[in-house]
Amino acid sequence: MVSSRQRLCVPDDLAVGASVALSAAHAHYVRHVLRLKAGDAILLFNGRDGEWRAELAESTKEGQEKRALALLVRKQLRQQHCGPDIDYLFAPLKRARLDFMVQKATEMGVARLRPVLTRRTTATRVNIERLRANAIEAAEQCGILRLPELYAPERLESVISRWQHTRVLIFCDEQSATGDPLAILAGLSPGPLGLLIGPEGGFDDREREMLSLKPFVVKISLGPRILRAETAAIAALALVNAALGDWR
Amino acid sequence: MVSSRQRLCVPDDLAVGASVALSAAHAHYVRHVLRLKAGDAILLFNGRDGEWRAELAESTKEGQEKRALALLVRKQLRQQHCGPDIDYLFAPLKRARLDFMVQKATEMGVARLRPVLTRRTTATRVNIERLRANAIEAAEQCGILRLPELYAPERLESVISRWQHTRVLIFCDEQSATGDPLAILAGLSPGPLGLLIGPEGGFDDREREMLSLKPFVVKISLGPRILRAETAAIAALALVNAALGDWR
Repeated sequence: MVSSRQRLCVPDDLAVGASVALSAAHAHYVRHVLRLKAGDAILLFNGRDGEWRAELAESTKEGQEKRALALLVRKQLRQQHCGPDIDYLFAPLKRARLDFMVQKATEMGVARLRPVLTRRTTATRVNIERLRANAIEAAEQCGILRLPELYAPERLESVISRWQHTRVLIFCDEQSATGDPLAILAGLSPGPLGLLIGPEGGFDDREREMLSLKPFVVKISLGPRILRAETAAIAALALVNAALGDWR
Repeated sequence: MVSSRQRLCVPDDLAVGASVALSAAHAHYVRHVLRLKAGDAILLFNGRDGEWRAELAESTKEGQEKRALALLVRKQLRQQHCGPDIDYLFAPLKRARLDFMVQKATEMGVARLRPVLTRRTTATRVNIERLRANAIEAAEQCGILRLPELYAPERLESVISRWQHTRVLIFCDEQSATGDPLAILAGLSPGPLGLLIGPEGGFDDREREMLSLKPFVVKISLGPRILRAETAAIAALALVNAALGDWR
């Protein structure tokens, strides 16, 4: 049995008979955390070719630490598939909470992670490689096959001014009294979506006005309690996946 | 202006003119984190009497560290209100993730936090005081007025055998292929609810069978991707609040 934790995301193409040389970090994980031996199985994915069963080719005995570890790709277990077509737009949070938010958005199956800088965004520097590492970690742990695409941070106004009008942008407005969010989502047709979650301090009035004037923006409310940004992200993605996405 | 972060949960009864002596930890927070001075305002709540504006009575100058700080309760800003009547049943996770899950369930407005021990629960010791501290922290930060009631950990079978049949128990079954969760929730009448989220390893077959035989159990699925327990908690509470609770 291969547990769902024994899953690695590798950059290599995956096909029957391919040999995948492991990075130092993966080799350490395979040798010292999973303690796999030659012939033991592990799952591989790369975000493109589905999920594969592979076997450890090298012995992992003491004294062979320096030798490169390789995995032999044996059999495809799952075909690549797309999740929901959701652009997830978020104001970056401080480090640990941003890590967490990226992991959770990946778990919830978003297609793209797009940091947007708003007037009240406090964390303006975003380490894209760190975001990527968090997305990969979540995908490895949760059996996700598609890695979300990562965008460089961009100002909200700029993102909105170049928005493709056929993609509905769901704006979670903490000041909105729009009523039943499911009724609003039920009125939309399934298709490409964006989801915008604001910074901890909320959007400012000019941003809210700018957004409310756009024909592709649909406001929803996430209830009467204040939610922290990472909670709002999961909650909104749950509603969107359930009402319009692949939870139906 | 009193920011939403300047909110303290105190054990005292709150009424106009009451004087609230602060604990050492609160006094430290008020003096050294918020740096309040005599006459400055702060919000107080206790889970029973709504939200109140209070003012710092003592000066916080150097040299007065040892003097007890007191707050004078001035005015009620929000009446106490109840959130949704949801018993949230969860298998305890390891420390940091359990902290997080309790904070998030509090943010999402549950009425009761009930740790249940399942066959695959790995963390069986639960520090109730730590759960309480996390619930209070989340309530302070998120403007929640009602603190969830905390139950001692109990075996799942025991909880289910004494379950009140008028309270529908929504069982998030990771192996369920029950289809559209919103359609299932839409078929229920609003009223007292329970929500059961399993341990990381899932429920075992005997547990799943035992649950499926109960007339008060309704199974829902949270989509095709594996969700970690704390993510499933927020996602399921979002669907329940939106379909049956106070997000409508």
